[in-house]
Amino acid sequence: MLRQNDPREINPQGEGLLKGIAIDPVIFGFHENQLKVLVIEHTNTGLYALPGGYIQSTEDVDEAAKRILTMRTGLSDVYLQQFHVFGKYDRNDPEVVKKILIGQGFTPTENHWSLQRFVSVGYFALVDYTKTKLTLDPTTGSFVWYELENLPSLIMDHRTIIDKALATLRTNLDQMLIGFNLLPTLFTMAELHTLYETILGKKLLSTNFQRKMLSLDILERIDKKKTGKPHKSPYLYRFKSDGLQ
Amino acid sequence: MLRQNDPREINPQGEGLLKGIAIDPVIFGFHENQLKVLVIEHTNTGLYALPGGYIQSTEDVDEAAKRILTMRTGLSDVYLQQFHVFGKYDRNDPEVVKKILIGQGFTPTENHWSLQRFVSVGYFALVDYTKTKLTLDPTTGSFVWYELENLPSLIMDHRTIIDKALATLRTNLDQMLIGFNLLPTLFTMAELHTLYETILGKKLLSTNFQRKMLSLDILERIDKKKTGKPHKSPYLYRFKSDGLQ
Repeated sequence: MLRQNDPREINPQGEGLLKGIAIDPVIFGFHENQLKVLVIEHTNTGLYALPGGYIQSTEDVDEAAKRILTMRTGLSDVYLQQFHVFGKYDRNDPEVVKKILIGQGFTPTENHWSLQRFVSVGYFALVDYTKTKLTLDPTTGSFVWYELENLPSLIMDHRTIIDKALATLRTNLDQMLIGFNLLPTLFTMAELHTLYETILGKKLLSTNFQRKMLSLDILERIDKKKTGKPHKSPYLYRFKSDGLQ
Repeated sequence: MLRQNDPREINPQGEGLLKGIAIDPVIFGFHENQLKVLVIEHTNTGLYALPGGYIQSTEDVDEAAKRILTMRTGLSDVYLQQFHVFGKYDRNDPEVVKKILIGQGFTPTENHWSLQRFVSVGYFALVDYTKTKLTLDPTTGSFVWYELENLPSLIMDHRTIIDKALATLRTNLDQMLIGFNLLPTLFTMAELHTLYETILGKKLLSTNFQRKMLSLDILERIDKKKTGKPHKSPYLYRFKSDGLQ
C-alpha cells in the first residue's frame, strides 16, 4: 500500500499507527569507487536525518520498511535488510521532533504521540545511486547523497544507526552480496574487487582477494570476456545459484 | 534492576511498561556434543514458549533483555546478542495470551494491554548448560533444556524465532565465538573442533577445519599441552586479544 504523504500529515493523531516503534532505513549508494548514504533535510528545519517513518497497525514491520522507503524516496524493488533495533531509553529528543513538526506547519501539543519514546528498527539497503530517482514530498526539504567522510551532523542517534549499518554490511558482505544485486549477471574479478574495496573502504591485494573469493565457493567461472585482445581477456564469473543468500 | 516476579503479576495494568514491544530470548545450551535450547512451560497451561518479557518505560531495550533473562531463568552475566525483530502483523494470538494469564490466576479483560499486537525483539545467548542454575517463578511451570530435534510445539512464532537465532549463530560463529566465552582460556584444536561440530550440527574434516581456523587469524598458538605422553601432546591455542569480537 502506497501513500503520497507522510502519515503525520494526513493523520495528526497517529491513529492506525503503532506507537513507540519506528523505522529508520539506511540507504547506501554505490557507484564505481564511491560509497554514499542518503540523508534528508526535514522541511524548513536545517535538521538532517535518515528517511524514517512509522508502522501501520495492520502491516508487517518488514512491509512498513519497504513502504516507508518508497514513500520517502521513490525507490522501489530495493532489497532491505533488517539489522538492529535501537532501543536506548534516552535516544529520543522531543525538542527535535517538535521542530520537525513545526517545520511542516503543525503545532504539536505537549503530549503529542510522536514526542513519546520510540524504539527504532534499523534497515539498510545498497543501491547504485546513479540509478535512483528521488521524489520530494511535503516533509522532505531535500535529499543528499553524502560521502561517509562528509556527513553533516544528524538528529538523535542517526549517526550511530549509520555506523552500525556500515559495520554490519562490511562484516557480512560475503553473505549479502548476491541479494543486493549490484553486479551484472556476468562480471570480472576486477569488478568484484572494486565493489569490495569501495564498500570496505580499503585497498585489498588482488591475489589474496581472488584466492579468498574462490575459496568461498559462491562463484562459477564461465568464460573469457570478449575484448578483441587475447592477452587482456579476463575470465567472467557469475554467482552460483545455490550460493549464499 | 531485578524483580522477583513477572511484571504482569505485580502490575496488571501494564503501567510503566512499553506497550506493543516485547523481548524473547533464545538460550542455547552447549555441553560436550550436545546443543539444546531453553523452553518454559507457562504455569498450568501445557503451553511451551521462550522465556520472554516486557520492557520498562525507562530502561534500554538491551538492559531489559538482560533483566528478563535473569528474572525468568536466574542466569546472569550472560552475553546476549540481539539478532532480529519479529514484526508480522498476525504473529500474536490473543487466545494463547489469555490462557497464559488465566493459568497464572488472572481474568484478563477483552482489551487487556497484553492481548494487543506485540512486536518482539529476539536475542540469543550460548551457555554451558551444565553450569546454569534455573529458578522457578510464579509464571513458569517448568524449564526444560530441549534438544533441537525434539522441541515440543511452541506458542505463536517462537519456533521461527529459535530457527532464525540458530541460523544467525551458525552463519556468524567465527565472529561470535570469543564473546560467548565457551572455551577455557587455553584450548586445543580438538576442543574447538567439537564446539563447531556441535553448534553447526554436522561433522567437519579435521584438516580442513584446522586450515580454516588458522586462516581466520584469530588464534594464537601457545605451547604443547602437558599430557605426559610426548607423542600425544596437542598444541594449545588462545584467542588473539585483538581478534574478532
